[in-house]
Amino acid sequence: MAKITNISGFPEWLPEEKLVEDQVIETIKHIFLSHGFVPLETRSVEYVSTLLSDGEVTKEIYGLQRLQNEEAEKSEASLALHFDLTVPFARYVAEHFNALNFPFRRYQLQKSWRGEKPQEGRFREFYQFDVDIIARDELPLCHDAELLQIIEKVFTKLNLADYTIRVNNRKLLLGFYASLGLSTEAQRKAIGIVDKLNKIRVDGVAKELACALNLEQSKIDQILALTKIQIKASAAAAELAKITGSDELLKQGISELLRVIELCPDRTKDKVVLDLSLARGLDYYTGTIIETHLTPYPALGSVCGGGRYEDLASRFIKQKLPGVGMSIGLTRLLSAVFKEKLIPVQKKSPTTVLVTVLSEEERPTSIAAAEKFRDSGVAAEVFHLSSKLGKQIDYADTRGIPFVAFISDGGAKVELKDLTTKEQKEIQITEWCRSFSSIANKQ
Amino acid sequence: MAKITNISGFPEWLPEEKLVEDQVIETIKHIFLSHGFVPLETRSVEYVSTLLSDGEVTKEIYGLQRLQNEEAEKSEASLALHFDLTVPFARYVAEHFNALNFPFRRYQLQKSWRGEKPQEGRFREFYQFDVDIIARDELPLCHDAELLQIIEKVFTKLNLADYTIRVNNRKLLLGFYASLGLSTEAQRKAIGIVDKLNKIRVDGVAKELACALNLEQSKIDQILALTKIQIKASAAAAELAKITGSDELLKQGISELLRVIELCPDRTKDKVVLDLSLARGLDYYTGTIIETHLTPYPALGSVCGGGRYEDLASRFIKQKLPGVGMSIGLTRLLSAVFKEKLIPVQKKSPTTVLVTVLSEEERPTSIAAAEKFRDSGVAAEVFHLSSKLGKQIDYADTRGIPFVAFISDGGAKVELKDLTTKEQKEIQITEWCRSFSSIANKQ
Repeated sequence: MAKITNISGFPEWLPEEKLVEDQVIETIKHIFLSHGFVPLETRSVEYVSTLLSDGEVTKEIYGLQRLQNEEAEKSEASLALHFDLTVPFARYVAEHFNALNFPFRRYQLQKSWRGEKPQEGRFREFYQFDVDIIARDELPLCHDAELLQIIEKVFTKLNLADYTIRVNNRKLLLGFYASLGLSTEAQRKAIGIVDKLNKIRVDGVAKELACALNLEQSKIDQILALTKIQIKASAAAAELAKITGSDELLKQGISELLRVIELCPDRTKDKVVLDLSLARGLDYYTGTIIETHLTPYPALGSVCGGGRYEDLASRFIKQKLPGVGMSIGLTRLLSAVFKEKLIPVQKKSPTTVLVTVLSEEERPTSIAAAEKFRDSGVAAEVFHLSSKLGKQIDYADTRGIPFVAFISDGGAKVELKDLTTKEQKEIQITEWCRSFSSIANKQ
Repeated sequence: MAKITNISGFPEWLPEEKLVEDQVIETIKHIFLSHGFVPLETRSVEYVSTLLSDGEVTKEIYGLQRLQNEEAEKSEASLALHFDLTVPFARYVAEHFNALNFPFRRYQLQKSWRGEKPQEGRFREFYQFDVDIIARDELPLCHDAELLQIIEKVFTKLNLADYTIRVNNRKLLLGFYASLGLSTEAQRKAIGIVDKLNKIRVDGVAKELACALNLEQSKIDQILALTKIQIKASAAAAELAKITGSDELLKQGISELLRVIELCPDRTKDKVVLDLSLARGLDYYTGTIIETHLTPYPALGSVCGGGRYEDLASRFIKQKLPGVGMSIGLTRLLSAVFKEKLIPVQKKSPTTVLVTVLSEEERPTSIAAAEKFRDSGVAAEVFHLSSKLGKQIDYADTRGIPFVAFISDGGAKVELKDLTTKEQKEIQITEWCRSFSSIANKQ
């Protein structure tokens, strides 16, 4: 027998779990589409040089090699699986630059692969759901606010758990550090250190700021004091007014944050927390930074993160393309959904009605009835045997199919049994489907 | 600048093409779900031994190697990308056997990878859309008919071009060859030769049957005569009655074909052709075999093929799991859609309404109006600047966004311009959306 063990870091869901994943995907996709984001998909592979040349050698990349590669073809450029969706997106935009309209807003749901050691919430093969808006030369702040609005709608609609959208601005941080007299290089390093706050706590950050940057205690205290500002967006203006410092970048960061919050609808503001401890590790970000956490599951880490960058694709094309984007860690999110039972995993089938079969002679009648259900928008299945009705009902029960139909009089009479209430009644298929769909749509 | 060329065999669509691909996917998915097929997704990788051990060494497999692999880990079992969805599905069913309910019906839309030389309709990275129904021990013929019904619904609904669903039965072929006195081994070889009919034509097949199987002319003539039977399903019974031969397998093949056709709804029968020249290369199939072609594009090859097999997963598990399934070559199909312009590629955006912005002060009013459109099920986008209205209308025009909204009186007044008819009128957002959606749903 061939080996059939699972492979660590390459998760696979059961059918009933995949139904839940698809429901989550549909919810998110619907919101992205309703904001005019166009779907995009890149190939799974890039040249290794494309993936490596931004200096990010820490990413564990899977290279590809054709097992039957002939000697003569050994020279073909080496390919590898992408490790995120940002690099392929940047390459795609550069490659198809003249065919795209800017500002360009796209969403992208694809798998990425990383050879890292698998652990909770970290996989070797995983789905990410990215949205970005990129523009030529200038990108207004309204887009940063739109992303916050979208994140709020996604996590409210998914209704998995209480959540917080944390927001900060890199210019505020850099400007604040500058006003303390830190060099550009030291500002950058300070961000990296503050980003570790959750891991190494306040003491660890203080120690690293002292050792790595040789900062005096009063400056460390001020940096740490800034990280303590974590307040509701509605109180942001009053709180930000207290931050002193004449640095231009600091002022700009504060004003950007205020404008972004101002442009959020009220229901979004309610979920947004101005969190000046938020730093995000990547050098990439230059303005707004965002992270979302499910409040009851801090160990899970961020389920959605992003921010504003000045330059998407200058590695590939001579164009200034600023953007703002975010990525939902779909596989991480789903792993929590299943582990913590955040969405009930019940239905093993998308079927709503199982049409029974009284005898093989009458099978065509059942097939026709099932088709009538489907034509009216209700998923139906015809039982595959003409066994005892009890056995047919058991089939539906086991799979979570809620209704069973009995057809008689050559299709003229249809009775429907609700397996939840055990109630059975005669119905007209089209009428019943209309009323069923209108109830289902409201849920 | 890093290299941004395309990679031969790894197609990427433009956003407006991806919108069309998603529309095709939605259409197919909806039909699969309406028949109760559960979605399933396997990891992209398998052990190389899993992919190779069925002796199919002709498949060009992409192996994976972690670029940063440490010496100590060199021993880890080698992984490769799957080259189809059948092997991963078989492995998955064996691995999760006790968690699945049989008969098990699933659909699976995923990419596969093959290192073959790219050519028209053949890619190195491609999507396939598979459905299979598998059972323990016995699988009734009604499922073969259901697949034909589904294929008919898919290609009628996609409305790409005229098409034919060709159907045959392996038992009929093997039994017919047996009745001519061919050995089991020769029967198998004859199927492989007849399968090449389209490529090497009648003369080529005759020659190969003579040379490879050493058949006398009269038998060759009978084999070729059988391939000439290509008739509408409605005439199948009369035509099949003419086939003589006492072989039991032949009789069983004929009776299976007749029962499968009998169980097809009339609209399916209209599209099904009994084609006794259909052989399909794979040894795998044991009964019903199916292929679908777009009539005006014979060079494209089969866009959907499948059939019945006795044994899905005996390589992995001691269980007899007969099944019937088919695979739609989605990437091949889409390549034809774009090349032959079978679906208009127009919209560059999913947005229905662009909400204009008169000034930055009034942006929140436009944001609120856009949200009202979305809440009523209509995709809306807010223009990112407060430029001249002409420029904002141009933005919509360029992207194929059909409507532009103008908001005044702090949101109290909404005017909508239809960019197709140039008509402009005042509307109530909720009411307008309701009527728009009901028209859109009918299309």
